[in-house]
Amino acid sequence: MTTVTEKIAVEKKVLSENDRVAAGLRERLRKNGVYCINIISSPGAGKTSLLERTLARFRPEERVAVLTGDIATDNDARRMARFGFPVKQICTGGSCHVDAKMVERALDDWDLSTLDLLIIENVGNLVCPASYDLGEDEKVVVLSTTEGDDKPLKYPGTFFRATTLVINKIDLLPYVPFNIEAVRENARKINPNIEILELSCTTGEGLDTWCAWLEKGVLA
Amino acid sequence: MTTVTEKIAVEKKVLSENDRVAAGLRERLRKNGVYCINIISSPGAGKTSLLERTLARFRPEERVAVLTGDIATDNDARRMARFGFPVKQICTGGSCHVDAKMVERALDDWDLSTLDLLIIENVGNLVCPASYDLGEDEKVVVLSTTEGDDKPLKYPGTFFRATTLVINKIDLLPYVPFNIEAVRENARKINPNIEILELSCTTGEGLDTWCAWLEKGVLA
Repeated sequence: MTTVTEKIAVEKKVLSENDRVAAGLRERLRKNGVYCINIISSPGAGKTSLLERTLARFRPEERVAVLTGDIATDNDARRMARFGFPVKQICTGGSCHVDAKMVERALDDWDLSTLDLLIIENVGNLVCPASYDLGEDEKVVVLSTTEGDDKPLKYPGTFFRATTLVINKIDLLPYVPFNIEAVRENARKINPNIEILELSCTTGEGLDTWCAWLEKGVLA
Repeated sequence: MTTVTEKIAVEKKVLSENDRVAAGLRERLRKNGVYCINIISSPGAGKTSLLERTLARFRPEERVAVLTGDIATDNDARRMARFGFPVKQICTGGSCHVDAKMVERALDDWDLSTLDLLIIENVGNLVCPASYDLGEDEKVVVLSTTEGDDKPLKYPGTFFRATTLVINKIDLLPYVPFNIEAVRENARKINPNIEILELSCTTGEGLDTWCAWLEKGVLA
């Protein structure tokens, strides 16, 4: 019964293989001047809605593309394709996260020199995606106000690895037991340098700041 | 580069070892007449709140106990312990799900003959926990109205394996784009026999039906 040791050994090997592919991706993105973010959240926190609102604000000449990961269905790619920018679905076929190989395959027929910004929307899962480097410049965690302000403490891995926390659904604050100060404090206990943005995809509040944050990354 | 094949082989081995331990647990629970449910949901869907409301309604002589899984912190066990029933935290130490071995260890010093109902609250994750049998009688998936009515299609594994879907946070229906008919339809596309309950832990609506559902399981 050495399965736990065996499992850890194979997980380490899988992760180091993933890191190798991710390093190649990072190099390719850097060479082509593409700024890349990897968005992670629970199911239903609003990743796709945030991307819809973001794409809707972009001018047609923006050089942006989206890879959207899901276990099943291509609903998200269809939702986003109507904005006219390149969007590709990564269907993980049961897997609980997007890995670097999936991104490499998805980028195979895209000319990265035509892009300034690549957004990867991960599978809805606040745990596993954080362990898989995708060659991105930054991991962004989206947490919605309906999920509770204790989540940074309960899912520390993701909040530790993210550079930025986006608090979504602030329009629902009057109806839910969620303390913005508490969530900021909890997130900073795990990651003192995490940047925190607040927004609502429903009312549009905070989207200007989010778009300015993206632009800052693209120009950096 | 055989890591994917290797990974699948080890995953299969881990799952079959898990199934072996789960079968032992199931036998032990059955012998002692304990009805056991395994509650699965995204982070923040309201598993702990549902259990708090449930325990608050139980008479002190109810023979119920709770195991609550989290990656980090024992917040949930502390939240639930104040109702006076046995509660134990399973801290998975980074793992994205509760497995049968963790349950076996947690039950080690509990006399199952003193229980009628054992509730296991899994880690907040709509993907991975569904693959791990814990010896339970039923898997219950909790989905909150803030997560979107498309989730059964996007996370089919969990909805396929659950016998029952609890739709939580129905008090927020006026404020969120969530169609109850659509979610019922989507859940039944994945699992035609799934039982569906609706409730709100905030207003208490639907909790009587939920408690009756639990009692039906205990008496069966």
